[in-house]
Amino acid sequence: MAFRKIINDPVYGFITIDNPLIFEIISHPWYQRLRRIKQMALAHLVYPGAVHTRLHHSLGAYHLMCNALQVLKEKGTVITAAEDTATKIAILLHDMGHGPFSHALEHVLLKNVNHEQLSLLLMEELNRQFNGQLQTAIDIFTNTYPKKFLHQLVSGQLDVDRMDYLTRDSFFTGVNEGVIGYDRIIKMLIVHNGELMVEEKAVYSIEKFLVARRLMYWQVYLHKTVLSAEMILVKILERARAIELQNNLHLPDCVLKRFLTDEYNGNIAGYLDQFCQLDDSDIIVAIKSWRSHPDKVLSLLCNGILDRHLLKIELQSNPIPETAIALKKKNVMERLNISEQDASYLVFTGEAVSGTYNPLVEKINILFKNGGIKDISQVDNALIQHNLSGPVKKFYICYLK
Amino acid sequence: MAFRKIINDPVYGFITIDNPLIFEIISHPWYQRLRRIKQMALAHLVYPGAVHTRLHHSLGAYHLMCNALQVLKEKGTVITAAEDTATKIAILLHDMGHGPFSHALEHVLLKNVNHEQLSLLLMEELNRQFNGQLQTAIDIFTNTYPKKFLHQLVSGQLDVDRMDYLTRDSFFTGVNEGVIGYDRIIKMLIVHNGELMVEEKAVYSIEKFLVARRLMYWQVYLHKTVLSAEMILVKILERARAIELQNNLHLPDCVLKRFLTDEYNGNIAGYLDQFCQLDDSDIIVAIKSWRSHPDKVLSLLCNGILDRHLLKIELQSNPIPETAIALKKKNVMERLNISEQDASYLVFTGEAVSGTYNPLVEKINILFKNGGIKDISQVDNALIQHNLSGPVKKFYICYLK
Amino acid sequence: MAFRKIINDPVYGFITIDNPLIFEIISHPWYQRLRRIKQMALAHLVYPGAVHTRLHHSLGAYHLMCNALQVLKEKGTVITAAEDTATKIAILLHDMGHGPFSHALEHVLLKNVNHEQLSLLLMEELNRQFNGQLQTAIDIFTNTYPKKFLHQLVSGQLDVDRMDYLTRDSFFTGVNEGVIGYDRIIKMLIVHNGELMVEEKAVYSIEKFLVARRLMYWQVYLHKTVLSAEMILVKILERARAIELQNNLHLPDCVLKRFLTDEYNGNIAGYLDQFCQLDDSDIIVAIKSWRSHPDKVLSLLCNGILDRHLLKIELQSNPIPETAIALKKKNVMERLNISEQDASYLVFTGEAVSGTYNPLVEKINILFKNGGIKDISQVDNALIQHNLSGPVKKFYICYLK
Amino acid sequence: MAFRKIINDPVYGFITIDNPLIFEIISHPWYQRLRRIKQMALAHLVYPGAVHTRLHHSLGAYHLMCNALQVLKEKGTVITAAEDTATKIAILLHDMGHGPFSHALEHVLLKNVNHEQLSLLLMEELNRQFNGQLQTAIDIFTNTYPKKFLHQLVSGQLDVDRMDYLTRDSFFTGVNEGVIGYDRIIKMLIVHNGELMVEEKAVYSIEKFLVARRLMYWQVYLHKTVLSAEMILVKILERARAIELQNNLHLPDCVLKRFLTDEYNGNIAGYLDQFCQLDDSDIIVAIKSWRSHPDKVLSLLCNGILDRHLLKIELQSNPIPETAIALKKKNVMERLNISEQDASYLVFTGEAVSGTYNPLVEKINILFKNGGIKDISQVDNALIQHNLSGPVKKFYICYLK
Repeated sequence: MAFRKIINDPVYGFITIDNPLIFEIISHPWYQRLRRIKQMALAHLVYPGAVHTRLHHSLGAYHLMCNALQVLKEKGTVITAAEDTATKIAILLHDMGHGPFSHALEHVLLKNVNHEQLSLLLMEELNRQFNGQLQTAIDIFTNTYPKKFLHQLVSGQLDVDRMDYLTRDSFFTGVNEGVIGYDRIIKMLIVHNGELMVEEKAVYSIEKFLVARRLMYWQVYLHKTVLSAEMILVKILERARAIELQNNLHLPDCVLKRFLTDEYNGNIAGYLDQFCQLDDSDIIVAIKSWRSHPDKVLSLLCNGILDRHLLKIELQSNPIPETAIALKKKNVMERLNISEQDASYLVFTGEAVSGTYNPLVEKINILFKNGGIKDISQVDNALIQHNLSGPVKKFYICYLK
Repeated sequence: MAFRKIINDPVYGFITIDNPLIFEIISHPWYQRLRRIKQMALAHLVYPGAVHTRLHHSLGAYHLMCNALQVLKEKGTVITAAEDTATKIAILLHDMGHGPFSHALEHVLLKNVNHEQLSLLLMEELNRQFNGQLQTAIDIFTNTYPKKFLHQLVSGQLDVDRMDYLTRDSFFTGVNEGVIGYDRIIKMLIVHNGELMVEEKAVYSIEKFLVARRLMYWQVYLHKTVLSAEMILVKILERARAIELQNNLHLPDCVLKRFLTDEYNGNIAGYLDQFCQLDDSDIIVAIKSWRSHPDKVLSLLCNGILDRHLLKIELQSNPIPETAIALKKKNVMERLNISEQDASYLVFTGEAVSGTYNPLVEKINILFKNGGIKDISQVDNALIQHNLSGPVKKFYICYLK
Repeated sequence: MAFRKIINDPVYGFITIDNPLIFEIISHPWYQRLRRIKQMALAHLVYPGAVHTRLHHSLGAYHLMCNALQVLKEKGTVITAAEDTATKIAILLHDMGHGPFSHALEHVLLKNVNHEQLSLLLMEELNRQFNGQLQTAIDIFTNTYPKKFLHQLVSGQLDVDRMDYLTRDSFFTGVNEGVIGYDRIIKMLIVHNGELMVEEKAVYSIEKFLVARRLMYWQVYLHKTVLSAEMILVKILERARAIELQNNLHLPDCVLKRFLTDEYNGNIAGYLDQFCQLDDSDIIVAIKSWRSHPDKVLSLLCNGILDRHLLKIELQSNPIPETAIALKKKNVMERLNISEQDASYLVFTGEAVSGTYNPLVEKINILFKNGGIKDISQVDNALIQHNLSGPVKKFYICYLK
Repeated sequence: MAFRKIINDPVYGFITIDNPLIFEIISHPWYQRLRRIKQMALAHLVYPGAVHTRLHHSLGAYHLMCNALQVLKEKGTVITAAEDTATKIAILLHDMGHGPFSHALEHVLLKNVNHEQLSLLLMEELNRQFNGQLQTAIDIFTNTYPKKFLHQLVSGQLDVDRMDYLTRDSFFTGVNEGVIGYDRIIKMLIVHNGELMVEEKAVYSIEKFLVARRLMYWQVYLHKTVLSAEMILVKILERARAIELQNNLHLPDCVLKRFLTDEYNGNIAGYLDQFCQLDDSDIIVAIKSWRSHPDKVLSLLCNGILDRHLLKIELQSNPIPETAIALKKKNVMERLNISEQDASYLVFTGEAVSGTYNPLVEKINILFKNGGIKDISQVDNALIQHNLSGPVKKFYICYLK
């Protein structure tokens, strides 16, 4: 009897693993570690159900990849068994480089390194451990494999990563307006001239997909309370780092400490194993230990995030005037009797930018029955024109109430 | 113990009737008749689940009205018990004037009368039967009641009618991209300056609502196969009428016959009871009896719709050229050996127009926290600008394959 | 590109037809007719969403069959392409023999013939039309095909028919306690010793399935209001038949009339085409025409069902005492001034029997990891022992209020 | 405008907080801490979606309580505003006494104290902080309040705690056979003779509820892999404690250490604040630090749980024979070269007992229309008789593969 493991998923019902190599990869400690990293960082402070993990998301994306590959094969696209497995591995591992609290702490714990670069480093190391069996997956992931559409399934305007996270994040937050018709879109995928496209019948589903994404950005990912919480998290780590430089953090020797002191010194490849020892819980425990740290700013921020007493936040379309910032800082400096530099951890500004469809960067091609091809923004009566085509930027200020 | 009836609804869980007058209205034969009229006419030829009824839709809209009124009262809007009941009755009866196959045969069975006019006539007659207890409901329905927002709940850009039919039609068709966040929108309704508005937080839900509506129009309501089927239905009745004028229809004396011969002669008020005897089944049975009618055109159309062998249909953005129509007609005339007039039942053109949000006609006002009010098309980075603001028109041609 | 049609289903998402023969069968007028027959007869009088059709159910059962066959093949059971297609056809056509209002009028319109017999007659005729291509499907349907498990998938304790109707009826009624884990059960199906079994891991799902079935019987299928409505329907047709015998029915010549007068005289095979012209609408239109029939009993029953003024019904565990019946009959005879025989249409008794799992008749075999096999009622701590093992019978009386 | 906070919940849609005191309680750090305790401990190792929190569950139970109180009031039961608020507070706080990993570590971190006792201690302290405003809630929680039915809603055979956790755990695991008809049961609740009962119409829903609970126990809560993982967790803490007694744990001074050394010495009331500093993350971080502990047994167990390499587990109906245990222990002793006592952390037995309905302990009373009252196990054709009436016990052995 064939190899076959079944995993219950509240979103798709069942996820099937029918390849021993894929099962081995899932069983690797580096993959299992994704159980301890929340997909949506601190969104659960607003949406209490949003506590699902990176592991769950990547299993979900893998499931959609299985469906997508099946559809393309049924439509006559040649995909060998090796390519099939490799593409599934590429999607399983695409997010492996995420550290604690995913995007929220990206570039904070590890400066100048993003999660895709880390994913690639980790995949390369795994490839060594698995005797080269991941090479095709890496080629697909880095878009050096000749069949471009396989990379597009992993990372592109219509990749299964995006389809899963929108679907899954909608499901767990309960924001069901974010629901997309992933099954219809997948059924309408087609490869034409070596590129991934969608059939004409899916035009409205694609529009809906782009609008759902827009909604999820503003209603969930960039929800102002979530934004405030995640910025506090960033400020906590920045403050901790500053205190540690003065050897005052009193943090016991631990992996987290090594990253706070930038011990790896740019040589992240040599610290992969250490990096993979980190997860959300290290940050939480550190923050809890700093609740009563003598540094007023650090303890205030730590208590804030643990007890959900967040900084106030205001979003607007225009940059925050300098005078408004100065006024709020002055107020905090006086109330807490702290320096301006200290106050900058409690009063600060930033920009929130929604990820959106940008046809200048990459197209979503619609294949018409008559053989014509148009970008989604070019179809008749297109919804997605000037509006959704570029990212939207908003400016915010966070400050102590 | 208080009066209380509970009805299972797969969409909302349970619908509660806690007012004896409302229960009596629901029990009236004219209301019960809505059980025998499909909400979506012939959409089930494409979406087999879409067989739900007008009765179910109006009960659903009533349920959403209960929620909306509750929310507004909790926010401090004064709504008396009498107004509460009247608004619920108004929504329950808003669609009572629909005849067989709802919109598909509107203006076909009864010329020059639309379903709202019929609903009003029926409500007035019911008001007599219920000794004037429906007067406030009628005033709200006809927008002559001072509190305008009650009418807006029944019929307006954000009425519960629309919220229910989009939700319900999505549910029964399985087109879940049409799902809207009705519960969020309802929770965000507010009355300001006597007008129904939505709070700022619902902006993305409203955008999503308008986009879902657009999607449902093109993917479901104006799906080309549905359009073809519903036009065949129209042609069947037109053909039957033409034949009946020559006394050749061989239809036994029945209510349907009286409407086909326009016996009521414009005096629909005198024929309300007869009208309420009609439902989908009369049309189906007539069509089945015409399967073998000697008139070639009639039998061909009737068999087509019963066996789902529909006319071919093509949609496009520009009007169909006269020459193309003539060519197809000629082909049919020759194949079937029929006159040009007869062929016009088998080759014909038309226009499909999607209902959309038109801010020129009626606004969806967003109430901002700072007290400002903007139409949804005027908010920052609005999705709904030039695109969704006017109806979209497409042209189609149907013809015998 | 391969043949491929996709149908939206609110229950399973999408149903795929990838075989031209199966598509042709679905396109046959006899199959399309199932669109006009409600799956649950008059259950919609209690559960307004329950208006789905026999066509929809059989498409759903076909979909589950596709999944089940796929699972068995993945587990190593040999199923040829011809057997695969034949089994799918068998399930598609298993309910084709249903007439108007399905079970409610079975044995009423056609005496002494059940729907399975009719399904077989229709399949045999279709087999002639399709030049013998349905022979294997017929063999599987009649359990004369050597691989018994194929028949068990079509008709057995764990057939996909049952799985679909429980799932679908739950969905459309909104009685979500009836939801079963069809996907888990199907994933756990296995063929052992040529018999269909389920793997050990599915024990609780099977128990749940049997309990859900029990619940659906008493809460939905045998709901007392549904029972009353469906018995009125039966009484209407019996009364109509009695009146017609005296040539007083005033029914225009039509197909229904031929069945009311038993014109076919037992020779149903010669009347198959006529039978397939009947559907729910014929009954509805006849009942509407009898609303004002001079026969007091007939018009009373017809108005009752159309306006949902049903007979009162009482269910109990013991037979209704003769005296109680006599008393109620006397009351009706006096109030309406009718004979005792006439009163027997308005006061009558009957038995409601729930279909349940009976291990004496057919077993649900559980295949244990250690190779052992036990009936579901024999596993450790079995829920299903003496209780669910036999049908439960209740006695009812219906009478005019 | 009235006080009103709305929380998105994927299970129920929206949860409304409309009372400032309740909002203050939810904002208390002790309540917010429940965000960091998983409802289902390690069930996510089998069901990856099962990562929802104690906070989410108690908010859900609160929501159902709001519905239940509303239903009872509509049915005429007198519930004052103060009682209404108090009952809601009681359910919100009923699980506050849970520590890290909820049930899995109950009695392990704190010996001889269960979570209900801790909840009460915490409620009493909160009552002081809130100036006695929680007194009625405490009386209801401890069942000393005269209206018994309020306590029954919080803790009883049909309490909203159970309804929420079954519903929520089904939702997040994706085991949808566990879905119960909570809304129907709540709508059928009624107070009679001062006791909580359900109306006759809910009989099948109650049966279904009890069966779903049984299924959830065996398929989820006592799933053998979950059981193995949670027992490893227990063994880890037991082993850590034993090592700490010899001062070899090398754990930095922290709250967890104080509980491992039983510093509180039975005086838990004086350590409430310390207890409330603990959550899942402390355990995870400790386990990660013990991955490379010199104690072979500890590091083996810690790596096992982090990387999901669990002990093998076997369940059976009879106790595990001593000889089988001894054999497995011997094998482990030899392979790892450890003592028998050390081996007892890697080879051990235990009992899994499902919580079930036991009519001897507490009844589920059904109120019949005729005024009669019967326990659910006494109704006609009861499903729940000998079978579900007592708990089921299974015996298991865990051992190193």
